Amino acid sequence: MGIRASIPDIVIGRLPIYLRALGRMIQEEKEYTSSHELGERLGISSAQIRKDLSHFGEFGKQGTGYNVQYLYEQIRHILKVDREWLMAVVGVGDLGHAIAHYRGFQARGFRVAVLFDADPKLVGERIGDLTILPMEQLAAEIQRLGIRIAMIAVPAAEAQAVADRLIEAGVTALLNYAPITLAVPPGVRVQYIDPAAHLQHMTYYLTP
Amino acid sequence: MGIRASIPDIVIGRLPIYLRALGRMIQEEKEYTSSHELGERLGISSAQIRKDLSHFGEFGKQGTGYNVQYLYEQIRHILKVDREWLMAVVGVGDLGHAIAHYRGFQARGFRVAVLFDADPKLVGERIGDLTILPMEQLAAEIQRLGIRIAMIAVPAAEAQAVADRLIEAGVTALLNYAPITLAVPPGVRVQYIDPAAHLQHMTYYLTP
Repeated sequence: MGIRASIPDIVIGRLPIYLRALGRMIQEEKEYTSSHELGERLGISSAQIRKDLSHFGEFGKQGTGYNVQYLYEQIRHILKVDREWLMAVVGVGDLGHAIAHYRGFQARGFRVAVLFDADPKLVGERIGDLTILPMEQLAAEIQRLGIRIAMIAVPAAEAQAVADRLIEAGVTALLNYAPITLAVPPGVRVQYIDPAAHLQHMTYYLTP
Repeated sequence: MGIRASIPDIVIGRLPIYLRALGRMIQEEKEYTSSHELGERLGISSAQIRKDLSHFGEFGKQGTGYNVQYLYEQIRHILKVDREWLMAVVGVGDLGHAIAHYRGFQARGFRVAVLFDADPKLVGERIGDLTILPMEQLAAEIQRLGIRIAMIAVPAAEAQAVADRLIEAGVTALLNYAPITLAVPPGVRVQYIDPAAHLQHMTYYLTP
């Protein structure tokens, strides 16, 4: 880890947002940008962006700013998404289906490689190239594929048990769609997708 | 706004997480809890929880802690989710379908009340009680229903134009699933759901 261990997690959390904006700029065939322009697009101060990036080195030149493609590649490398990560999805209801079909992962370093569900009626169903597998095969498949990342899309009541099984199988990064905070051992990371929590954050500011 | 305007947004952002944990405790028929127990469940320090809640008043008693149901109701009131908010969904592809079918909103203060899509092949399709409407009806329907909150589930390239239309129709809170940062006028709030960004945040810490 060395230097990296000292970089605040909140800085790491902003890098994917910078990467996303740089990806858009590449689509727009923009060659150069500045911390000012990035900041305008993202609603983040240019000073913050320069400070965040300075943790990792010198990416721009006074006057000309950042080369978009170069900065994009550097951040991809820092976040380790200049390779493809395979992912497991557990729970293939409506949400799991949407995740399995989602085309936005591939360009950003991820591929859904295996699907699991506890419902015998869903097991065997094909989604694209994949067949939904039973939970009994979870550990073996995750180990066979060397999977480290899983998305949990089961009901809240089942999410902790699913997380435990995934971690036991070797998964160390969980994206949890179930509306429950998971208990995980040190060394395992969890991120949460909870749309209702985001909505409730906004209603505070609304005048009914 | 009065007192409220001075409460940091990061505190407001944690209230939905507290509410979610309290909701689970109610399901578990737990009558009392403490900042310590809440903190353990959420991976947040008990001091932080007490400090966050102290912005809004005195909710617990030294010794007995918090009455779960009472604290739950108080936070629901603070976040204004002790009522039902109607929402519009724009974009009814796989993701929009999953959102329209999602049963987790209702218990947390929200109901999807109207669906829009630009694709004539989708317009007219029924999802549950709702029929997908064409974009031409967006402004009129949103005004008729008094909708203030919308979820954007269209491709990145269309998201800004959709946001502009929604805001013009009177929407002031956007939950954006498109992987792009939106430009919005003051007074309009945006929250983002970007699973790939969460995944990239975690891969930083993974050893390939």
